[in-house]
Amino acid sequence: MNFQPLTPELVAAFEQIVGQHHVLTAQGVEADVYADYGRDHTEDLHYAPDVVLRPANAEEISQIVRLCHEHHVPVTPRGAGTGLSGGALPVHNGVVISTERLNKIIEIDERNLQATVEPGVINQVFQEAVQAKGLFYPPDPASKGSCFLGGNLSESSGGPKAVKYGVTKDYVLNVQVVLPTGDIIWTGANVLKNATGYNLTQLMIGSEGTLGIITRIVFRLIPYPQQNIVLLVPFRNEEQAAAAVSEIFRQGIVPSGMEFMEREAIEWSSRYLNIPLTLPEDILAHLLIELDGQDLDQLYKEAENLYGVLEKYDIGEILLADTVAQKEELWKIRRNVGNSVRYNSVYKEEDTVVPRAELPKLLKGVKEIGRRYGFNSVCYGHAGDGNLHINIIRGNLSDEMWNHGLREPIKELFRLCVSLGGTISGEHGIGLVQKPYIGIAIGEVQLELMRGIKRVFDPHGIMNPGKIF
Amino acid sequence: MNFQPLTPELVAAFEQIVGQHHVLTAQGVEADVYADYGRDHTEDLHYAPDVVLRPANAEEISQIVRLCHEHHVPVTPRGAGTGLSGGALPVHNGVVISTERLNKIIEIDERNLQATVEPGVINQVFQEAVQAKGLFYPPDPASKGSCFLGGNLSESSGGPKAVKYGVTKDYVLNVQVVLPTGDIIWTGANVLKNATGYNLTQLMIGSEGTLGIITRIVFRLIPYPQQNIVLLVPFRNEEQAAAAVSEIFRQGIVPSGMEFMEREAIEWSSRYLNIPLTLPEDILAHLLIELDGQDLDQLYKEAENLYGVLEKYDIGEILLADTVAQKEELWKIRRNVGNSVRYNSVYKEEDTVVPRAELPKLLKGVKEIGRRYGFNSVCYGHAGDGNLHINIIRGNLSDEMWNHGLREPIKELFRLCVSLGGTISGEHGIGLVQKPYIGIAIGEVQLELMRGIKRVFDPHGIMNPGKIF
Repeated sequence: MNFQPLTPELVAAFEQIVGQHHVLTAQGVEADVYADYGRDHTEDLHYAPDVVLRPANAEEISQIVRLCHEHHVPVTPRGAGTGLSGGALPVHNGVVISTERLNKIIEIDERNLQATVEPGVINQVFQEAVQAKGLFYPPDPASKGSCFLGGNLSESSGGPKAVKYGVTKDYVLNVQVVLPTGDIIWTGANVLKNATGYNLTQLMIGSEGTLGIITRIVFRLIPYPQQNIVLLVPFRNEEQAAAAVSEIFRQGIVPSGMEFMEREAIEWSSRYLNIPLTLPEDILAHLLIELDGQDLDQLYKEAENLYGVLEKYDIGEILLADTVAQKEELWKIRRNVGNSVRYNSVYKEEDTVVPRAELPKLLKGVKEIGRRYGFNSVCYGHAGDGNLHINIIRGNLSDEMWNHGLREPIKELFRLCVSLGGTISGEHGIGLVQKPYIGIAIGEVQLELMRGIKRVFDPHGIMNPGKIF
Repeated sequence: MNFQPLTPELVAAFEQIVGQHHVLTAQGVEADVYADYGRDHTEDLHYAPDVVLRPANAEEISQIVRLCHEHHVPVTPRGAGTGLSGGALPVHNGVVISTERLNKIIEIDERNLQATVEPGVINQVFQEAVQAKGLFYPPDPASKGSCFLGGNLSESSGGPKAVKYGVTKDYVLNVQVVLPTGDIIWTGANVLKNATGYNLTQLMIGSEGTLGIITRIVFRLIPYPQQNIVLLVPFRNEEQAAAAVSEIFRQGIVPSGMEFMEREAIEWSSRYLNIPLTLPEDILAHLLIELDGQDLDQLYKEAENLYGVLEKYDIGEILLADTVAQKEELWKIRRNVGNSVRYNSVYKEEDTVVPRAELPKLLKGVKEIGRRYGFNSVCYGHAGDGNLHINIIRGNLSDEMWNHGLREPIKELFRLCVSLGGTISGEHGIGLVQKPYIGIAIGEVQLELMRGIKRVFDPHGIMNPGKIF
């Protein structure tokens, strides 16, 4: 793509559209604020945008994008910047459009169990708002306290509830989008079933900001499950823990959470949080299991069935959390594994996913590849979905090994996922950092279809360029 | 599109690919069989294909399609021909490719709760095969005894379980497709979460055979709910029945079935089935409600809550079906409403869908439009999803009115759906017969995106031409 430089005339036009205060540059009064828009939560990367814009609504975004389309200026849409694949990084500079001011919950429709929101609403803020009305929006990435719903759609985010309730895409009925040409469209209708034309809604979800900027979302909601039980199950063998996951589902039990943590993952996180936790030496992994529903007696029955399945494995003593505080503490440990790894070491995170019964093979393969190439990894993730987050730890690796030498083992790892029926990202997206590997998961014919779709939406290639393919 | 006529050389090439016995023509020995491929379950329509092919596998389909692509010959993919929007009709003649010989269940993977099937497997055959292993595939259109799974994907079919379990699209993990160029691809991976590139899987689903021919499907399955309760609730007022639907969900009850039937719908169907049923004169509508789960005591508790909600409405005596035979009879009545309407009268069926709380307004609007234009309708459908099937009855309408005069009232009806946040098809698709109305539901910018996507997949426009837009 041939991009054009940003001219002073364009910057002046942007100031007209969003107001001077919402145009940030390296030279401006808020230069420190501006700098933050050049990075996200992906490793150590930074790319400087020419200008950061903070529009207030879809109409302003439409005007900005139309100008960028006409002048061939790159646009990088940005939510909260909590992404883990570099999707929000302005790798071709140009304009960053932040959705932070589109942060209104427009309506919670209790009659239809639907909600209409702007993309800059924080996931947890939305969850709490609907919960106050007895309703439930299940998708909750680890970053739920800061990530935006628009970003959740763009990366097709999951989270621990996905095992029972599905991921973000399963709750989106309709999306308003500013296309790369500046046109504003709705992708569907506010209904639970829709057989009217191609599914543009699902095409937008997971397209990582390359097909347009999401400006409004209609979600479906479900009744809030009033009761839950949380168990922490220690295993003496990582692969047995992974194997138990598949067996639980085969027995007809569908937990609302089914998280796997290696010994190191739980140790690092509890140390990071200052939560005292003494693990017997022979415990090598844990499953954190949550059951939920409307009836506590029913949950205890299910828990009995669950104990029956777990008994067959070589496990330690199960911890049953029965106070709200205990449950929250266990989930807090799980949610902070990623932060604790980030705090302890430079790392690269791979977001592998396989059919859930193949998890033991994946885990064994990760460790074997690590031994062969000389790196350590901390593994944890959403075992019920077969979604394993593999954190490769920098440790004593040389610059050469860290910057170039890991390509081959990561390729081996991804090839293993694909050979097991899986793929290279379950919920983080391809973005920038997984782009070199996409050919492992997706064939050239499919990539050519995707590029074709991209050209249909974005003939000048201005929207989040340099991502996915 | 400029299509080319089918040459004798091409027919000879098809005979080479699929074998002479699987090439059917108007002049061939199986001319009567051939003729069936020119119609489906949509009204009275018939279009004659030049040739019908019955290939055995994806490779044969690929060879056929490649030839058609090169020679600009139209291809119409066909499942069981049970569609209700004319999607399988060869309106530009050319080649019909039937998937009837791709009818194998390739694997039921109990470890991963997945199954791999060919598109010509009958929905009910598949349901029963997985149920024998304690597993559940919920989507079950009324035609489940004959419709193919491939067709279910193409039209994004629903069925009565959708209210709790979602529609076909919610169970598809991965699809093998022969593209309009002849290339064979898989659209995704066999995993529950996938954030790797654009969602080609969901783009294929509901594309009504215009983007390629589905040749293999990987479904996710869930544990089979072992228990259920079925209730038939009579209402003295149709709109109250529709209003109760929304209230039930607001009270945190999620039935596995929630069907609405007007008095005439239930009368026609029970008469058609020779099932004696005496309805008190003041009963104008029914809700058929099913609750399901793993525990019967739990279901009775839920039923009590349900009674608590229903009490507030002007209802007759609730019939609780507690034998298998009784439950089956009630469901049989519901499933045969469509057949009984077809048996009683020429009709046109509209597959409207709105947010569920808007059903009373839709129902009221339908009757009002009917009164104004002088037609009767029989209404029934999946009330839990807001999906109302409106059968416009021919009755004494003139040819002029039937063939042309209904356009305006149908437009009014569809505009009403859209104004209520809904759309013009919930689960039947646009196909041929709803094509004139698509502009009511989908704007020109969105249609242009869809046409662009179509061109990316099908540069010569050969695949199911004349459908959707």
